[in-house]
Amino acid sequence: MLDLWKHYPQIAKQLNDVRSLMHQLLSSNNQAIQALLNDCAQQQGKMLRPGLFLLFAQLGQPDKRQTEKLTKIATSLEILHQATLIHDDIIDDSPLRHGTITIQAKYGKDTAVYAGDLLFTIFFELLIETMNGTPYLKINSDTMRHLLHGELNQMAARFQQQQPISNYLANIKGKTAALFRLACMEGAYFGGLNQPKMVALAAQIGENIGISFQIYDDILDYSSSTVTLKKPVLEDVAQGVYTLPLLLAYQQHPAEFDQLLAKKRQISKSEIQLVSQLVKKYHGVKQAKQLALNYTHQAIQQINQLPSGKAAEELQQLTKKLLKRTF
Amino acid sequence: MLDLWKHYPQIAKQLNDVRSLMHQLLSSNNQAIQALLNDCAQQQGKMLRPGLFLLFAQLGQPDKRQTEKLTKIATSLEILHQATLIHDDIIDDSPLRHGTITIQAKYGKDTAVYAGDLLFTIFFELLIETMNGTPYLKINSDTMRHLLHGELNQMAARFQQQQPISNYLANIKGKTAALFRLACMEGAYFGGLNQPKMVALAAQIGENIGISFQIYDDILDYSSSTVTLKKPVLEDVAQGVYTLPLLLAYQQHPAEFDQLLAKKRQISKSEIQLVSQLVKKYHGVKQAKQLALNYTHQAIQQINQLPSGKAAEELQQLTKKLLKRTF
Repeated sequence: MLDLWKHYPQIAKQLNDVRSLMHQLLSSNNQAIQALLNDCAQQQGKMLRPGLFLLFAQLGQPDKRQTEKLTKIATSLEILHQATLIHDDIIDDSPLRHGTITIQAKYGKDTAVYAGDLLFTIFFELLIETMNGTPYLKINSDTMRHLLHGELNQMAARFQQQQPISNYLANIKGKTAALFRLACMEGAYFGGLNQPKMVALAAQIGENIGISFQIYDDILDYSSSTVTLKKPVLEDVAQGVYTLPLLLAYQQHPAEFDQLLAKKRQISKSEIQLVSQLVKKYHGVKQAKQLALNYTHQAIQQINQLPSGKAAEELQQLTKKLLKRTF
Repeated sequence: MLDLWKHYPQIAKQLNDVRSLMHQLLSSNNQAIQALLNDCAQQQGKMLRPGLFLLFAQLGQPDKRQTEKLTKIATSLEILHQATLIHDDIIDDSPLRHGTITIQAKYGKDTAVYAGDLLFTIFFELLIETMNGTPYLKINSDTMRHLLHGELNQMAARFQQQQPISNYLANIKGKTAALFRLACMEGAYFGGLNQPKMVALAAQIGENIGISFQIYDDILDYSSSTVTLKKPVLEDVAQGVYTLPLLLAYQQHPAEFDQLLAKKRQISKSEIQLVSQLVKKYHGVKQAKQLALNYTHQAIQQINQLPSGKAAEELQQLTKKLLKRTF
């Protein structure tokens, strides 16, 4: 999905600088550790968070002297994201991510724990270099806390098919949307669009894009295949993570689902397929798409309130594209 | 080993405030998560790092208005320590620590990963509250990086009985001594003994105490029992972590060890007992004690260069006591 950025040549160029800086920061004198760190730096997916940050930064028309600082902040966002992915993959026992073998599968869970911790440290170092003395240090640590509470709350809600939709939404606000929110508000602030009203608007746009993005991710688990998605589908059900399409369909016909979900971790592959069919039959996917669309529309309306120009147009396009993806 | 502080009533009182603050910071609206966080806050061992910090802070005779800030910094040190312990226990698969069931054993490795991450976040929050705009943010992130590189290097050196002693020392400087170093230098700086010479002296004292402390910890693995130590002994050998007593004894009679260690993870319990006997037979424990004693003597000589008074005397006593512990 790096292809996404080929239509935004300036952003694509800056994202190359982000990639170079990641490689530079992830270094060690020890050969064995260097191999691990190279793999951490190469586990790049969509680069959505640094890309959104850079798009928002363009709105403020920052001068060239700001470029290095903006690259560092964009990198901090991608490194925090990578750190959480490395730790997520330990928990999910995932073999693949974006079609690449995960750190935990290649090096073992033990190394992956420390590798993720090291990425948190580098994230922290980049913040100190670029934001020491500003309120953004606290905004970053609040985001990290929000993110982890989202993950922990999701874990505490496993195997609870009766949980309210509001619970699902609160959890994805933390585990996914908080980082999108941060990326957009930091872009506005550090790019020069730093009036409090504009920063707050950027934060809301980021949150709405993040929620919509996560709902789409959860939809793809029911509507896509392992080949297209480049990662195993329907793993969430076996692990008791019941996402929006299932929760919505469940409300229509609880009894039919309860039979299957009662098996919890012992649920078989064919039973998971039955669950997936029920989710589609009772319009779980369709209703989830509708909800995602609402968040995207909100984001688009809010983007219309930003200063007009090339950056705002590109942001419009990008947001619409995120709702059409199949991978 | 909280008993350690009963002879230092003022420090003991301040450590109670540290404990209260930890409980206050580790909170969640979610009941299941609150139970986990309570256990994280209660996993308290020796409280050595915040205790040393507070002793060094007393040297500067800080006024009472500083008390709250000092308590927060002391707490940041204990929380960083706890975060690394929670992640260490995942890697070591440890059932017990200080006689208490570990977070990973009670809640599973997945929850323990996020619990450790959350503690890193709270550590970060405490630093931002107390040190924003000062060079100590960077000193803290450098320490965290040093600590993790020590852990990763130790992991990369597993099953290498021929590694030089300098490698072992470099790794424990990172994984253990870096945090003792930080505690002592922050104590000096934030307590008011902030001339660069004194802060550098405090850092050296902390490093020497930390190295000596870790060597003693590794000695106890060969000279103590599970009952006294309140955790399983000799686990390191099975996991390929060869510490100072083994490395020193190995240099005397490599062939005898190679036979046993060639089995790597497949080594049996009785073979581990044989390794332990060889370590003692070839004076590994005795020589390691001698090396630890050198570091303690250095620390004591350096403590003599601190401003004299009650705090410096207490520091002398404490440092000597750490070399006599059996648990």
